[in-house]
Amino acid sequence: MLYIIGLGLGDERDITLRGLDAVKKCEKVYIEAYTSLLSFGLSAHGLSNLEKLYGKPITVADREMVEEKADNILTEAWQSDVAFLVVGDPFGATTHTDLVVRAKKLGVSVKVVHNASVMNAIGICGLQLYRYGETVSIPFFTESWRPDSFYEKILRNHNLGLHTLCLLDIRVKEPSLESLCRGKKQYEPPRYMTVNTAIEQLLEIEHTRGECAYNEDTHCVGFARVACEDQMIVAGTMKQLLAVDFGAPLHCLVIVGKTHPVEEEMLEFYKLKR
Amino acid sequence: MLYIIGLGLGDERDITLRGLDAVKKCEKVYIEAYTSLLSFGLSAHGLSNLEKLYGKPITVADREMVEEKADNILTEAWQSDVAFLVVGDPFGATTHTDLVVRAKKLGVSVKVVHNASVMNAIGICGLQLYRYGETVSIPFFTESWRPDSFYEKILRNHNLGLHTLCLLDIRVKEPSLESLCRGKKQYEPPRYMTVNTAIEQLLEIEHTRGECAYNEDTHCVGFARVACEDQMIVAGTMKQLLAVDFGAPLHCLVIVGKTHPVEEEMLEFYKLKR
Repeated sequence: MLYIIGLGLGDERDITLRGLDAVKKCEKVYIEAYTSLLSFGLSAHGLSNLEKLYGKPITVADREMVEEKADNILTEAWQSDVAFLVVGDPFGATTHTDLVVRAKKLGVSVKVVHNASVMNAIGICGLQLYRYGETVSIPFFTESWRPDSFYEKILRNHNLGLHTLCLLDIRVKEPSLESLCRGKKQYEPPRYMTVNTAIEQLLEIEHTRGECAYNEDTHCVGFARVACEDQMIVAGTMKQLLAVDFGAPLHCLVIVGKTHPVEEEMLEFYKLKR
Repeated sequence: MLYIIGLGLGDERDITLRGLDAVKKCEKVYIEAYTSLLSFGLSAHGLSNLEKLYGKPITVADREMVEEKADNILTEAWQSDVAFLVVGDPFGATTHTDLVVRAKKLGVSVKVVHNASVMNAIGICGLQLYRYGETVSIPFFTESWRPDSFYEKILRNHNLGLHTLCLLDIRVKEPSLESLCRGKKQYEPPRYMTVNTAIEQLLEIEHTRGECAYNEDTHCVGFARVACEDQMIVAGTMKQLLAVDFGAPLHCLVIVGKTHPVEEEMLEFYKLKR
């Protein structure tokens, strides 16, 4: 049996009892390291906290490992109980559909243990989840690559009065350009897009496209470390949020659409006081 | 302190360790009974299972009680630690923004413990959450009241190739017509909309409006008891799903938009085999 277990968004205490029961009976425990381990407090003591809680060692599985060695993991899961731990929910912002499909094709049984995902936890700012349009991802711009396919989606949501969740780029274990040239694997240090960078890039694109999807007076909500003890949620215009230091990752950004009075009332608590 | 704690979607084992810690230190524990207690296995033994797990009594708070006696709950929370338990996530499909706003206005501190919501757990069918448009709610039709405001939203999502999550009506503690006439409180038995009823109503509206938002050959996914041990997920056309018995509540329905190959591959596992 392959258990795919959501860990939620904060730290090791955000696993569910159902999830913990499952981990405890598994012979092998993997944790995905694609995305947000750092935010999960796993850079320093986090992993050993998890191991202490579970009473067993955990193997960190980066994207490379899961892609290249999925068959090993699945063979183990065919013979015994294997846990694959995922920050957030297994089918939230980062999905693990691939692994499930491979497992099912091999006849390995799969059980999913759900948990909170950033895609529902942002509900805490008071904007109703059912009033969001399509979610967009904002990638880091480079000198030569400044994609703007998210712009149309934001514009559409704006025209419909819907809120837009912007998921911000995470670059973990990116091979360095130098290493690609030399054919030797070396990695860039991890990068996590801030709310500030996201807004800068968004305004640059609006400047180029000029179709009025938003401007520096558009109301937004910036989030850092959602659902963690030190989460930060600030509501304000793009211009205002540009000046806010949101601190450590992960960040995300919501562009506010048309609001209902009850949404406004809640947002009020998060607004910058002058 | 007021703790608003998501219980997740299955049973008492779906609370997080963080949530359980909080409940255990609270002097008073309420559970909201607006919506989905039945699905949470709380009709029979569920509540006593929760009480056993927490080691303390739980007060069931229906909508009336929360609306009329919120000040009592908040006064208690001002003086001591009070837990308000919520099926799913506190800001998922049923939101508790009102209570938070009232608490904050009174100066009562609020802590939220997130959990899975139907709005992210549906990700398990393989359709990517970021490819959903606006969520719609489908109310029970009556003889004289057949609202169709959801139709335009589905049509818009369809035109954009996006999936639509349809949340289906729940009627709990509705005063009976007779009791309204007599001025004496009596309630209708609870009603939960099935996938089948939802599809019937949807097709009726398409028949009236005729703008081709969908038809009986449109692909959908029907869900029952998402994230519970006996969850049921079936992919098929509206016509096919009309004939499926999804069993006990809660149900919800996804109208499938344009799919990517990896979405298709996963949906395949849920398709009706002929």
